[in-house]
Amino acid sequence: MLRIAICGGSGYTGIELLRILAGHTEARITAVTSEKSAGKSIHEVFPHLHAYKDLVYEPLDRKKLLEKADLFFLALPHGASQEAVHFFFGNNKKVIDLSADYRLSDAGTYEAWYGLPHAYVPTLKKAVYGLPEIYRSRIKKAKLIANPGCYPTSAILGLLPLVRNKVIDYSSIIIDSKSGTSGAGRKADLAVSYCEVNEGFKAYGIGTHRHTPEIEQEVSNLAGKKVTVNFTPHLLPVDRGILTTIYARPAKKISESELRGMYLRAYKNEPFVKVHKPGVYPNIKNVRGTNFCEIGLKLNERTNTLIIVTAIDNLVKGASGQAVHNMNIMMGFGETEGLRSLAIFP
Amino acid sequence: MLRIAICGGSGYTGIELLRILAGHTEARITAVTSEKSAGKSIHEVFPHLHAYKDLVYEPLDRKKLLEKADLFFLALPHGASQEAVHFFFGNNKKVIDLSADYRLSDAGTYEAWYGLPHAYVPTLKKAVYGLPEIYRSRIKKAKLIANPGCYPTSAILGLLPLVRNKVIDYSSIIIDSKSGTSGAGRKADLAVSYCEVNEGFKAYGIGTHRHTPEIEQEVSNLAGKKVTVNFTPHLLPVDRGILTTIYARPAKKISESELRGMYLRAYKNEPFVKVHKPGVYPNIKNVRGTNFCEIGLKLNERTNTLIIVTAIDNLVKGASGQAVHNMNIMMGFGETEGLRSLAIFP
Amino acid sequence: MLRIAICGGSGYTGIELLRILAGHTEARITAVTSEKSAGKSIHEVFPHLHAYKDLVYEPLDRKKLLEKADLFFLALPHGASQEAVHFFFGNNKKVIDLSADYRLSDAGTYEAWYGLPHAYVPTLKKAVYGLPEIYRSRIKKAKLIANPGCYPTSAILGLLPLVRNKVIDYSSIIIDSKSGTSGAGRKADLAVSYCEVNEGFKAYGIGTHRHTPEIEQEVSNLAGKKVTVNFTPHLLPVDRGILTTIYARPAKKISESELRGMYLRAYKNEPFVKVHKPGVYPNIKNVRGTNFCEIGLKLNERTNTLIIVTAIDNLVKGASGQAVHNMNIMMGFGETEGLRSLAIFP
Amino acid sequence: MLRIAICGGSGYTGIELLRILAGHTEARITAVTSEKSAGKSIHEVFPHLHAYKDLVYEPLDRKKLLEKADLFFLALPHGASQEAVHFFFGNNKKVIDLSADYRLSDAGTYEAWYGLPHAYVPTLKKAVYGLPEIYRSRIKKAKLIANPGCYPTSAILGLLPLVRNKVIDYSSIIIDSKSGTSGAGRKADLAVSYCEVNEGFKAYGIGTHRHTPEIEQEVSNLAGKKVTVNFTPHLLPVDRGILTTIYARPAKKISESELRGMYLRAYKNEPFVKVHKPGVYPNIKNVRGTNFCEIGLKLNERTNTLIIVTAIDNLVKGASGQAVHNMNIMMGFGETEGLRSLAIFP
Repeated sequence: MLRIAICGGSGYTGIELLRILAGHTEARITAVTSEKSAGKSIHEVFPHLHAYKDLVYEPLDRKKLLEKADLFFLALPHGASQEAVHFFFGNNKKVIDLSADYRLSDAGTYEAWYGLPHAYVPTLKKAVYGLPEIYRSRIKKAKLIANPGCYPTSAILGLLPLVRNKVIDYSSIIIDSKSGTSGAGRKADLAVSYCEVNEGFKAYGIGTHRHTPEIEQEVSNLAGKKVTVNFTPHLLPVDRGILTTIYARPAKKISESELRGMYLRAYKNEPFVKVHKPGVYPNIKNVRGTNFCEIGLKLNERTNTLIIVTAIDNLVKGASGQAVHNMNIMMGFGETEGLRSLAIFP
Repeated sequence: MLRIAICGGSGYTGIELLRILAGHTEARITAVTSEKSAGKSIHEVFPHLHAYKDLVYEPLDRKKLLEKADLFFLALPHGASQEAVHFFFGNNKKVIDLSADYRLSDAGTYEAWYGLPHAYVPTLKKAVYGLPEIYRSRIKKAKLIANPGCYPTSAILGLLPLVRNKVIDYSSIIIDSKSGTSGAGRKADLAVSYCEVNEGFKAYGIGTHRHTPEIEQEVSNLAGKKVTVNFTPHLLPVDRGILTTIYARPAKKISESELRGMYLRAYKNEPFVKVHKPGVYPNIKNVRGTNFCEIGLKLNERTNTLIIVTAIDNLVKGASGQAVHNMNIMMGFGETEGLRSLAIFP
Repeated sequence: MLRIAICGGSGYTGIELLRILAGHTEARITAVTSEKSAGKSIHEVFPHLHAYKDLVYEPLDRKKLLEKADLFFLALPHGASQEAVHFFFGNNKKVIDLSADYRLSDAGTYEAWYGLPHAYVPTLKKAVYGLPEIYRSRIKKAKLIANPGCYPTSAILGLLPLVRNKVIDYSSIIIDSKSGTSGAGRKADLAVSYCEVNEGFKAYGIGTHRHTPEIEQEVSNLAGKKVTVNFTPHLLPVDRGILTTIYARPAKKISESELRGMYLRAYKNEPFVKVHKPGVYPNIKNVRGTNFCEIGLKLNERTNTLIIVTAIDNLVKGASGQAVHNMNIMMGFGETEGLRSLAIFP
Repeated sequence: MLRIAICGGSGYTGIELLRILAGHTEARITAVTSEKSAGKSIHEVFPHLHAYKDLVYEPLDRKKLLEKADLFFLALPHGASQEAVHFFFGNNKKVIDLSADYRLSDAGTYEAWYGLPHAYVPTLKKAVYGLPEIYRSRIKKAKLIANPGCYPTSAILGLLPLVRNKVIDYSSIIIDSKSGTSGAGRKADLAVSYCEVNEGFKAYGIGTHRHTPEIEQEVSNLAGKKVTVNFTPHLLPVDRGILTTIYARPAKKISESELRGMYLRAYKNEPFVKVHKPGVYPNIKNVRGTNFCEIGLKLNERTNTLIIVTAIDNLVKGASGQAVHNMNIMMGFGETEGLRSLAIFP
């Protein structure tokens, strides 16, 4: 059994790792950290995590942790992760980092958007962006995974076949995303209090959200040239789920069935990406609690515009589920191990 | 007191008229129809409508109704409204039609999108599209108002200053709208049952929604040329509210403050349109139950894209409140009469 | 126009006072305090409060406030209200206190349940418990109103006819209440964050909630003897509303229609209490945003148990609406002034 | 692999069986019926059920089904199940009936509450009430299981230790239950449409709900004498979950720790019942999607009342999960097989 440590195990992505890994047959959690809950059993803090009656939160003591685990999931805040990743990676541990600290390969871009310098550029250069649908072969050999952001996962999977097949005008990309509230993390904050969010809906961070450069990095890599995108996040009054509606102008004449063919080919061997039939569009409710990404497409002939809609669970395919998928690939486990349960509907 | 009849008074727009008009000082409801609930008092069917203990639903008997009221609000299904409007209008009654039957001035467009011919084209030609921010002076003299659709109201108010000032490339307009579930009407339908909608979010009718030609008609009128738009509606798990995010490419160089100036000028005398300060965007929760339209704007300089966000309550500014506003204008009442209450927050 | 000050105007009960009073024809708000938002306009902090563009939050400077207003609504936290009430009351101002500080007439009971002594017992003795359905005549002459708690309002109105008519066994009273989340106040607190509350439901403070002695005080006063009650609050995933289900055993043989008769008589002149017909029970959705209390009743003959269900909006009849009602009575205004709008449904 | 047929596989309990059984290692679904969806693949109708791409809904042709499966789950409406159960059982198939048709062992009680006679009394006498915590040894040998109702499961598990230990006054039992909306089934019905349920809360069927005799039957069996109970169901604006708050008067002096001891002993070997520590009460959010029943308890010494709170997922422990648990017991599989996944939180 692979021994696993989770650093930052009391946030929503941390407890989602605990939930998913409880059903994994080849890995075992041997340490979970939380400064705030140190000394308490996981089950005491989270009554739904029955499987962890004997596991106790501990403070993040890096030296102690080194002996306890072979692979480290880091679910720490942005910034705080930089050094921890560097430490575990430097001590020959496999690391999957769920923060944004190792996602942007250009340290200058990181500093520009996150407002702090990157202190470990040589380590940054070793990180593999953990989107299996693009980087599976590199992930297999990786020791450090920068697990993708939730919005970027939903956007990049929607754009990938379009960009690979060079069928869109790159200057026309609009990404209109709507996310459930768990994306904001587990915290005492008036802005995410029930009565402020419930029965509401709003856009935020228009043109300034930090996931923008991450999307642009991957789209640019696919395009082979620098691409900028419009990205507008919105806050949905639901616990989980991201629905992303993407608009782009075709660069050449294309039919909807050719378009669908590109998506079907791109994802035909992907265990977690599902392309819908004509006229069928995804609903976040159908992917809740799962690692699936569902995709629907439309060519609007009246306006000559492509419209792509993707749905994921922000905490699973957008975070902890993708992290476990990456672990499975790195370790040679079955790719869907721990990730097979179906959405709870309704 | 103006005597008012509501035809179709047991749907969500019908009861919203009842709610709003209960507080109107110059109008009095003298008849309300509902085939299904005929014979029952309004308060019996809708316990929250305490003000209507003595008013009883009656069947839609047009001849009888003629004697009972001076102004008719028609909240009937599309198609069913055609003939009723024609009848009351032909009998010299003032009519405000909340259906789509008299919104599209071109009967061919109506037939193409609604799948049935328009049988009363001469009457159709008399209808005024009831968006006060554009047609106030015509509404003052009108006898027949085609009350705008909910999505079109949210989209047109967001686009109006841009189009009037000719600052955008008309081929670039993208309208990404998200509506609360009451927009689907009051009905027994699995698709809007609680467990199917709650915790879900989806796009629907992409490129095919019937509000598309209505938006295009008004934008084209403003532009002085035929414009097509991308319009994508989504279903929000909330009772009320439409948030519309509009994207367009500038046709010339413009700053965000010039842009904001256009909006402030366009709406400075409008009692129900509020333009937000830089960096502030609307939330549907802040307009719930009110006739306000809130607008936020952003010029994304990195991508050279204008982003406009509007929020309305689909049942008020998107339907019954706007209908009362139109009545106030037609009758020379104070424009905000009956429409002054503030949003219930939270 | 009566000049009004609100101390503590940025919490949910404070902004509800602002909302309601915006439509009041005989009162005008001249000062609103908030330490945190001092210097900001109300409209800036709460975009839905359009009516208050020129009113600015100020710090609670008691001396300054004395000159600005004739009547003071205090919406301060429990404990903090003690001294402020004493000060304004001692300076011959009319005071309506929305905190719990002056509700329990016995200072010892206050100390036992709130954990702090009452420093102003002589002032406490002057306070009138502001439930108009019981104390209308005293409220008319009062200068200090202790505005009832939300749960107690829902419970006492449900029990009043039973106790007045001495038809129940006082040892059998069970009050099972369910409240919307706004009852917890406006605050940054993980326990009321969206993702913790949404799709959840739980009981809390069983047998220990501080509203228990308040209910017992009023029921005991009505009964003419000391009564204890079982009170169990639960947290509902809705913004507003309290539904209270009350169980009691009849002390003598009684029919359901006799029972209903008692309720109809008790409330026949009450503008805000509505008794439902047989088999009809209230729904919090029908009273949302209003000062109404709806009551449904059932005699379960199989088990010989009375079941009373009441519904109120915790922020209106359970707080700010009742406070305005009390003001109207104290000042001789129309009782329903400012409180006539109907529930927004859906 | 055990071959399984589900009759009535397109309602919420039917698709919950499909979800749960997709992860079962010893059973395989070979037939699923739905009249309405016959001919369509399950995945087409329910996009979240990815595991069933090749399984197609078929009409309920009993003769054909006999050859396809060894064990039948019947998720048909009450009444419709009577004959189907009789048929499969009479043909030597194992049957687990999720309807109410075989739960009440007394045919007269069934007729009195369900309004139709029971046509198969000899078969009815063979049915075992499928609550493993009471009837495990009989379930092991059973061929026909009447799977318990959702409310009864939540109530009986809360009362069982009290009744077994004879510590309560049986005339004092009050069961105040609150259920998520999926309990009403999957149907086009205005009463469960989103806008009617959302932001609402109400009691219904007070004293008349059909689950009352089922609770009374089991409590009476445990008590060894006829017991009647007060049962009040309420409708919660959530998808899933039942929270039941039970009140009872002690028949003798008892401490809270003695009480807790009874619960711990009663459930110590039960894989799906969890008793909370003092002061901790269950939340339906913590059991969502799982077969767990969580229980919290309180002795209110001021009022001498026991208060028991239970939480289950109405579709899992209250229906399909308990059905699979019963199958596991009947077939000698591991009891938790297929039922080990943890709640999705948030």
